Amino acid sequence: MAAKKLLILPGDGIGVEVMTQVRRIIDWMAKKRKIEFDISEGLLGGAAYDVHGTPYPTQTLEAALAADAVLLGAVGGPKWDDLPFDKKPERGLLGIRKDMGLFANLRPATVLDALADASTLKHDVVAGLDIMILRELTGGLYFGEPRGIETLADGSRKGFNTLVYTTPEIVRIGRVAFELARKRNKKLCSVDKANVLECTVLWREEMIKLQKEEFPDVELTHMYVDNAAMQLVRNPKQFDVMVTENMFGDILSDCAAMLTGSLGMLPSASLGAADAEGRRKALYEPVHGSAPDIAGKDMANPLATILSFAMCLRYSFNMDAEAEMIETAVKTVLKGGLRTADIMQAGKAKVSTTVMGEAVVREL
Amino acid sequence: MAAKKLLILPGDGIGVEVMTQVRRIIDWMAKKRKIEFDISEGLLGGAAYDVHGTPYPTQTLEAALAADAVLLGAVGGPKWDDLPFDKKPERGLLGIRKDMGLFANLRPATVLDALADASTLKHDVVAGLDIMILRELTGGLYFGEPRGIETLADGSRKGFNTLVYTTPEIVRIGRVAFELARKRNKKLCSVDKANVLECTVLWREEMIKLQKEEFPDVELTHMYVDNAAMQLVRNPKQFDVMVTENMFGDILSDCAAMLTGSLGMLPSASLGAADAEGRRKALYEPVHGSAPDIAGKDMANPLATILSFAMCLRYSFNMDAEAEMIETAVKTVLKGGLRTADIMQAGKAKVSTTVMGEAVVREL
Ligand SMILES: CC(C)[C@H](C(=O)O)[C@@H](O)C(=O)O
Ligand SMILES: CC(C)[C@H](C(=O)O)[C@@H](O)C(=O)O
Repeated sequence: MAAKKLLILPGDGIGVEVMTQVRRIIDWMAKKRKIEFDISEGLLGGAAYDVHGTPYPTQTLEAALAADAVLLGAVGGPKWDDLPFDKKPERGLLGIRKDMGLFANLRPATVLDALADASTLKHDVVAGLDIMILRELTGGLYFGEPRGIETLADGSRKGFNTLVYTTPEIVRIGRVAFELARKRNKKLCSVDKANVLECTVLWREEMIKLQKEEFPDVELTHMYVDNAAMQLVRNPKQFDVMVTENMFGDILSDCAAMLTGSLGMLPSASLGAADAEGRRKALYEPVHGSAPDIAGKDMANPLATILSFAMCLRYSFNMDAEAEMIETAVKTVLKGGLRTADIMQAGKAKVSTTVMGEAVVREL
Repeated sequence: MAAKKLLILPGDGIGVEVMTQVRRIIDWMAKKRKIEFDISEGLLGGAAYDVHGTPYPTQTLEAALAADAVLLGAVGGPKWDDLPFDKKPERGLLGIRKDMGLFANLRPATVLDALADASTLKHDVVAGLDIMILRELTGGLYFGEPRGIETLADGSRKGFNTLVYTTPEIVRIGRVAFELARKRNKKLCSVDKANVLECTVLWREEMIKLQKEEFPDVELTHMYVDNAAMQLVRNPKQFDVMVTENMFGDILSDCAAMLTGSLGMLPSASLGAADAEGRRKALYEPVHGSAPDIAGKDMANPLATILSFAMCLRYSFNMDAEAEMIETAVKTVLKGGLRTADIMQAGKAKVSTTVMGEAVVREL
């Protein structure tokens, strides 16, 4: 079997240090489980801007398109805050998502038993939480045209963006959502604002059609986005799989992530369309950002990125057993009492990024 | 002094019963405090559709424009769910907001001591919470053109809406926000998605300019909307006044409302531009919806609507003393142990809508 081509993009801030820990896990997999990886590294975001004058160098895109999977740390930081819009680190992230066609963003929000008390929500409300938010990632307001800022005849200005979805875009994200739901508890909640936005009226109509025609075994419900934000706070365990458009997904998945109280634990996967052999372009990244305030201090929590690598094994390489090994190792390390600063609790042992990474490898 | 013209729109569902309790308070004010109200009633939403075949009759708009203030219950319900987009109850609400020019939606999220345990969040995270979310209400995606659903040449369809703001729209909501902040703790957080949406790049630029030119005494910070959703869950007390565009405001204010755990307690005010005498068109409504499942059962919590009337006295009639009387009466009644079903706690007395309304009047 050919070596699995992995492109690693550490990005900015803590992205670099957490990725160092993931490299340990990869090395372990290569040595102990004889899984061959062909690894290359690239630049994205601020780090790329510093070297190439652009947050999104052509060679990064080329390497990403040639890879079987991409692992990303995080991008952004105050250093690049004053750059013009098209030079900001985010352009690199949005560019690579779009050009790799990564329309399906899987954002699990799970609460591990060991960490249920880390949440600002009451223990019973979140203990055992396990929801999957599927966010459409290459459409909607993020990429819709026309967009821009114009000066009007009277000297005032107008800023505008376009929320737009076509039926094929809705159907392809819908299929991924129903398939995810089918593998879980066969319950899908589609979130929209169909009482106000025509674009999401179409979204709802297509979801209903898809359920009838292809997924009659999955129960489909609909919820307005404002109510969804409320219900996530009121009773998050009512949800299983949720699917929504790009901007709503950005907001709701971050809200859901914070319900868990341990952002440093949450992975994500962004997938493209399946090719003839069923392979999808894919990028894996932690939900947390580049945390410039603690960058370089060996304090960051590497577990979200390590768990993102586990998702990579599962979704890109069908290596469920190895993915589970990593997930179990993480749980055991936490049960053993090790905590990075972000998830520190009374009575536990506070450890560095490096020590946490080593502990996971040891557990494997 | 001329009688104050109040238009009452009970709307649908529990709107009708909660408004009955507000009428008691108004009667009490008229009798005991010699405040003359000239009251009329009108139809909006589903109730209007049932009588006039439209959720938004011309006579309702005319009465609203002639009134000094409008009190609204709530609109909507499953009975009207299958109506076409332009006949749904929401069209009435959105129409009256737009036509009255109510661009400033004040959505306080406060936690009364007596109810701090009603929240799904831990006591310390929300006890004493007191934030004010100012939502722009007549612009953005809600009203932007072009909008609609189109069939494309290949038979697929496209749904689209427009997110648009002009500088005058941003500046007028910005002024209201800074003024609110000035009366409170001089801290304003403007929420946008300026790393992705040009429309909100303009929003941020105008907020910065306004602060420099007119409100140098108010501290202005900026936050991305996804982070704002997280921070509301992580540590809501970091906020004082927040200002944001229409769609983000819809989501964040509902999220913030649910943090309090007592949606049945939260009022809101929607204000228009000040005329030469400083008077603003205004509509007051509870944050909760029409709750069709408990409508007609004398179970609904009338306090949000009663507190909305208190906001009406404060913002439309400068009657701070009377507004405070009502707010104090509500607090005392809660301290006394009375609870409607939605805020029921162990050891308290569960009462009906009517009994709760009577208790507030008695307390006055
Ligand atoms: C950095 C930013 C452009 C990005 C987004 O809005 O998609 C981030 O918030 C995310 O959720 O991955
Ligand atoms: C009913 C609906 C149109 C409305 C809105 O989205 O503005 C409601 O959610 C609100 O917040 O007042």
